[in-house]
Amino acid sequence: MPTLILLRHGQSQWNLEDRFTGWVDVDLTPQGEAEAKKGGELIKAAGVAVDRVFTSVLTRAIRTSWLALHAAGQTFVPEVKDWRLNERHYGGLTGLNKTETAAKHGADQVKVWRRSYDIPPPELAPGGEYDFAKDRRYAGAVLPNTESLKTTLVRVQPYWESDITPCLKRGETLLVAAHGNSLRAIVKLLFQVSDDAIVGVEIPTGNPLVIELDASLKPTSARYLDEARATALPAIP
Amino acid sequence: MPTLILLRHGQSQWNLEDRFTGWVDVDLTPQGEAEAKKGGELIKAAGVAVDRVFTSVLTRAIRTSWLALHAAGQTFVPEVKDWRLNERHYGGLTGLNKTETAAKHGADQVKVWRRSYDIPPPELAPGGEYDFAKDRRYAGAVLPNTESLKTTLVRVQPYWESDITPCLKRGETLLVAAHGNSLRAIVKLLFQVSDDAIVGVEIPTGNPLVIELDASLKPTSARYLDEARATALPAIP
Repeated sequence: MPTLILLRHGQSQWNLEDRFTGWVDVDLTPQGEAEAKKGGELIKAAGVAVDRVFTSVLTRAIRTSWLALHAAGQTFVPEVKDWRLNERHYGGLTGLNKTETAAKHGADQVKVWRRSYDIPPPELAPGGEYDFAKDRRYAGAVLPNTESLKTTLVRVQPYWESDITPCLKRGETLLVAAHGNSLRAIVKLLFQVSDDAIVGVEIPTGNPLVIELDASLKPTSARYLDEARATALPAIP
Repeated sequence: MPTLILLRHGQSQWNLEDRFTGWVDVDLTPQGEAEAKKGGELIKAAGVAVDRVFTSVLTRAIRTSWLALHAAGQTFVPEVKDWRLNERHYGGLTGLNKTETAAKHGADQVKVWRRSYDIPPPELAPGGEYDFAKDRRYAGAVLPNTESLKTTLVRVQPYWESDITPCLKRGETLLVAAHGNSLRAIVKLLFQVSDDAIVGVEIPTGNPLVIELDASLKPTSARYLDEARATALPAIP
C-alpha cells in the first residue's frame, strides 16, 4: 500500500539566530545535521524501504534528505527537488530578527503573520538582497513575493497532485523532506484539516511521520517513528 | 557551449583495505569525504554553475556528488543516479584482498585482470554474499557477473547516448560523479582513445576534469581544476 513519510528539517543557522528564514538558503547547524541523521536511523530501524524522495530546492531540506538517506543505508534512492516544496515565503519579514520585529510591529501583529492561516506578511521589496527572482534555481518559475500558509498550500497542491500522488497511486513509499509549512500543507490536504486547526499542527523536526494510505490515498494510519517526541496528529478523516 | 565535468570518488574503506570493490557498496573514508569536498570547492572557485548531476547507484560516488555540490553551494541542482555509471564489476575477485589474490593466482594474472582492456576476471558465483541480483537498486536490470573495461564501456555507452549526451546537446554543464572505470569509458568515447592507451589513463580522485565541447560534442579543451594533481590527458581528437 502507498506510504508517505514526512520529514521536517532540523535546526538551521537562522533558527539559532531567531530570524525569519523562508526562502533564504540557510544551512543546517551541526544539531540540524544530527537531527537528520537520527531521522534516517529511525527509518532504518523501522525497516522502511523508500522508493523515491521529494525535497525542496533549499539546502537545509536537501541535506536533511541526504543525511537521512545515508543513515538509512538508502543513498541510491531516486530524488527530485522542486521549489514548490519550499518553506513558506516570509515576504518583507525575510532576514529580520523575530524579537526585533515584534518590538517594531507589536507581538500581536507578528503573531498574526506567523500563525494566521491566510494573512501574509508585507511583500518583499524587489531588487534587494532577498529577491529570489535572480536565483537560477527559480529560472522560469512565477514566484510569490510573500505567502500565507493558505497561499503556500495553493502552490504545494498542484505539485502534490501532478508529481507526488501519481507515485503513491503506484503503491510507492515516498519520503518528503521539507519544511514546517510545506509539510503542513500536505497534512492539511491529506487529513482534511480545517483552516483554524492546521496552524496548530506542529510537526517535530527530524522525526519521520509515517502515513499509510489506502488505494484512494485516504490515510489509514499515522505515527511518528520517535514516539517520545511525537506531537498531536489530526484525526484520520 | 556544452561542458562536462568528470569527478572520480576518493578513498573508500576497501581502497584502504586493498580489496577488489567493484559493485560492493563500500562507503567513503573521512579522507574520501575530504577529497569530495575539495572537488566541490574547486568547482566553486572556478565559478562553474552545474546544470545537472549524473552518478552511479553506489554510495561512494553518490556521496561524492553530494559533498561536492554542498561545497560548491549548488545543492539544488537536479541529480540522476543510474547503475550503468557503476564501477567495473570485478566478478569473482569481488571482496578479495589484492595482495592475497596476487599470491594465489600470480601477480601477472592479477595484472592482466586489472589492466587489460578486454579480459574479465572469473565470473561471480551466483547466490553468494556479493550476488547483486537480489539488491532492489538493480530491480529490472540485466546484470553482468563480471566485466572487463571493454564490457564496462559496452553498458556505459548506451546510457551515455540516451541520457547524458541529450543534455550536453542542449548546452548544459554536467557533473558526472563516478568511478575510475566508468569515467575511463566516457573518456575513451569522447577522446577516441585506443584500447591499448585507455588502460593507462589514470583519472585522479577528487580532481574535477573539465571538458569543454563543441556543438557536435567534440572536445575543444580539457583541464583538471587542481593542476598540481593533474595526470596526462589524451590528446584532443
